[in-house]
Amino acid sequence: MTESTREKVDAAERAALDLANVPEDERNDALYAIADALRERTDEILDANETDVTAAEQAHERGEYSAALVDRLRLDESKVEDIAGMVESVAGQDDPLGRTLSARELDDGLDLYKVSVPIGVVATVFESRPDALVQIAALALKSGNAVILKGGSEASESNRVLYDIITEVADDVSPGWAQLIEAREDVDRLLDMDDSVDLVMPRGSSEFVSYIQDNTQIPVLGHTEGICHVFVDEDADLDMAADVAFDAKVQYPAVCNAVETLLVHESVASEFLPGMVECYRDAGVTLRGDEHTRDIVDIDPVTEDDWDSEYGDLELAVKVVADVYDAVEHVNTHGSKHTESILTENDEHAAVFMQGIDAASVFHNASTRFADGYRYGLGAEVGISTGKTHARGPVGLDGLTTYKYYLEGDGHLVATYSGEDARPFTHEAFDGEWTPGR
Amino acid sequence: MTESTREKVDAAERAALDLANVPEDERNDALYAIADALRERTDEILDANETDVTAAEQAHERGEYSAALVDRLRLDESKVEDIAGMVESVAGQDDPLGRTLSARELDDGLDLYKVSVPIGVVATVFESRPDALVQIAALALKSGNAVILKGGSEASESNRVLYDIITEVADDVSPGWAQLIEAREDVDRLLDMDDSVDLVMPRGSSEFVSYIQDNTQIPVLGHTEGICHVFVDEDADLDMAADVAFDAKVQYPAVCNAVETLLVHESVASEFLPGMVECYRDAGVTLRGDEHTRDIVDIDPVTEDDWDSEYGDLELAVKVVADVYDAVEHVNTHGSKHTESILTENDEHAAVFMQGIDAASVFHNASTRFADGYRYGLGAEVGISTGKTHARGPVGLDGLTTYKYYLEGDGHLVATYSGEDARPFTHEAFDGEWTPGR
Repeated sequence: MTESTREKVDAAERAALDLANVPEDERNDALYAIADALRERTDEILDANETDVTAAEQAHERGEYSAALVDRLRLDESKVEDIAGMVESVAGQDDPLGRTLSARELDDGLDLYKVSVPIGVVATVFESRPDALVQIAALALKSGNAVILKGGSEASESNRVLYDIITEVADDVSPGWAQLIEAREDVDRLLDMDDSVDLVMPRGSSEFVSYIQDNTQIPVLGHTEGICHVFVDEDADLDMAADVAFDAKVQYPAVCNAVETLLVHESVASEFLPGMVECYRDAGVTLRGDEHTRDIVDIDPVTEDDWDSEYGDLELAVKVVADVYDAVEHVNTHGSKHTESILTENDEHAAVFMQGIDAASVFHNASTRFADGYRYGLGAEVGISTGKTHARGPVGLDGLTTYKYYLEGDGHLVATYSGEDARPFTHEAFDGEWTPGR
Repeated sequence: MTESTREKVDAAERAALDLANVPEDERNDALYAIADALRERTDEILDANETDVTAAEQAHERGEYSAALVDRLRLDESKVEDIAGMVESVAGQDDPLGRTLSARELDDGLDLYKVSVPIGVVATVFESRPDALVQIAALALKSGNAVILKGGSEASESNRVLYDIITEVADDVSPGWAQLIEAREDVDRLLDMDDSVDLVMPRGSSEFVSYIQDNTQIPVLGHTEGICHVFVDEDADLDMAADVAFDAKVQYPAVCNAVETLLVHESVASEFLPGMVECYRDAGVTLRGDEHTRDIVDIDPVTEDDWDSEYGDLELAVKVVADVYDAVEHVNTHGSKHTESILTENDEHAAVFMQGIDAASVFHNASTRFADGYRYGLGAEVGISTGKTHARGPVGLDGLTTYKYYLEGDGHLVATYSGEDARPFTHEAFDGEWTPGR
């Protein structure tokens, strides 16, 4: 079994070298072929999925799985059609590869190009949703990366059929570019292979993502927690603020960009909070507040844990703050660098908040729920990163690329540019594209 | 002592939040003040350095330190002037912060900006050279990052004076932005603080860099090894090839972008190798070759270890290969993804080599020694990265930045863009700059 994981990763590493140079139209044709095959083999997919769902329902009855997990696992015809459509939309994105990011003449006849290339071998380890397998495989193929896929055991039958479909119609693009690993122990072996795997993208609970981060030297792209805040400033349009604060919590509370804590400027708290709390209550939101909040509205007290908790549910903590600086301080102390929003008509306060907070996304008069690759116009989304290097916030295909420097010379020597009579560099940027074999 | 490292890192974390918003002219003024103070206090610096050098010489006599280490440690008036000049040149670079990298309208009145910002808290751990302390501190300040500096114990007196000078004239830019740690144990504490430190840049031997990589969850920017190749193709201009291959090895053999292995196409080997070997021998290069090479020239045999060794000295391995594909295969097997060069007049062969090899820098008819931030026109250099995410190859100030998304709305809700009557996004890129408090 050890050999097997090593062999799969080695095969992916070899495939990555070729896949990096497969032309765009071949990668796109392969993606369209995957979409077609998914549609054609829908029955087969649903049969396999039924096996997974039945087993998961039994596990749910034994109290092992949550109902939400069973729900996420379940596919139907329209979901398979959605997956196929997603693959086509990935194919339709601009090619992230071979773009000349900058070109600079170093001297006569010595031209340096910085060109986007795939990262190499990326891995994803995900829980439940079988659509994640197809999505990541499609994004990897589009961006020229070999990919190691590891899904949850609860979705093993679904994942195997989806993987078979992908490799049957698209493996010849660069044989071995997609690899499936299935055993739990293989994940730990994979995480040890920092010599071969260039990036790992875990998808799942924050405990799960933390586990991955703590157990590998491979760079990790993802987020553990989304602890997001909405701050209602003294100069907010309070009607707008109520709508945005409502949207940020209630529109879809299960996701990472939903708000955890509502911060309210003390000078508008008495006017704003009673109506807001009523709206939230009508929507079934459980509220907990600090002392100042509870002087104004009758809700339960917060605990210190509340400020550092991601709810993923209809729960909200409420705090009254002295001013925008107090709000910034609270967010920088308790936020998870994900997404933060200020409601204000005062541009100076907006600037203090937006510049003062260290987070991937900072909004002015907009719901935190906009933090998403599709809404940002990035096309498909690899995930949302709360790390600060490589890629931050919602990550699209660009996050699966790196760059390479190509230097075209005519026998240039460094000796010419060194010592007493060193020739100076020109270092002039120019518009130009690196093209192979020109 | 534990508290002390923790306190320093906490102070840096606080300072980073303010430093991110210090205007360019204040950061530059502080850099010019540092340069002036270095010049004014040259005697003090040289006195402290003398203490370090004397101790190092004694250690060298005891066989503990190499002569090269003592050499790298030694400062004199002209070196201090060079350091001051380097700080001024960092000040003169374009501001890497606040650049709007892209702007996109998501819908009427809902504009998304991607803006460059500092990473936050960066750390450097380096051996010997006291100029590294000033260089990294200057680059960090210019790019708005707080910095934790840890130098080698052999340079402790020099480092302390240099650090005192920096903080005495520049601390008030954002109090606490530069922190010095001195004890070896503090490095391990630092490496544990992946919650607070965003990036670590080790500088030193490959063993040293490997140690750092293996002992932290903090993203590491740097390179362990520079195993570089020069390939002389069948269609090379052999005079040019000889000059470049000579420059790549002899011009400065101690550095990471010097060549380790010379690959020669079999069809030109008999013509090329005898003269080349003579040139190398005259320059004092020790040569080892594979069997095919030794049929042509009289040199020692290579061992398998040679292909995977970084020499950092006047040593070179030589191998005859069947064609460009064989060369690519050898490089992808043994290279360290640093810098590779092909000599050929055949553009198709050049393309096969440049696209086929996975390395940060791939050159056509130019010496590997050009792989350097200064020569690339990046201004000052943070280091050279052989990692594949965040920043690759020679890294300038850009490598010390990340980005932040600013979304400016007018009370926009995600509910508007969801469900049956979902309003579509416009997703149109536009030319625009995000400006605070507009």
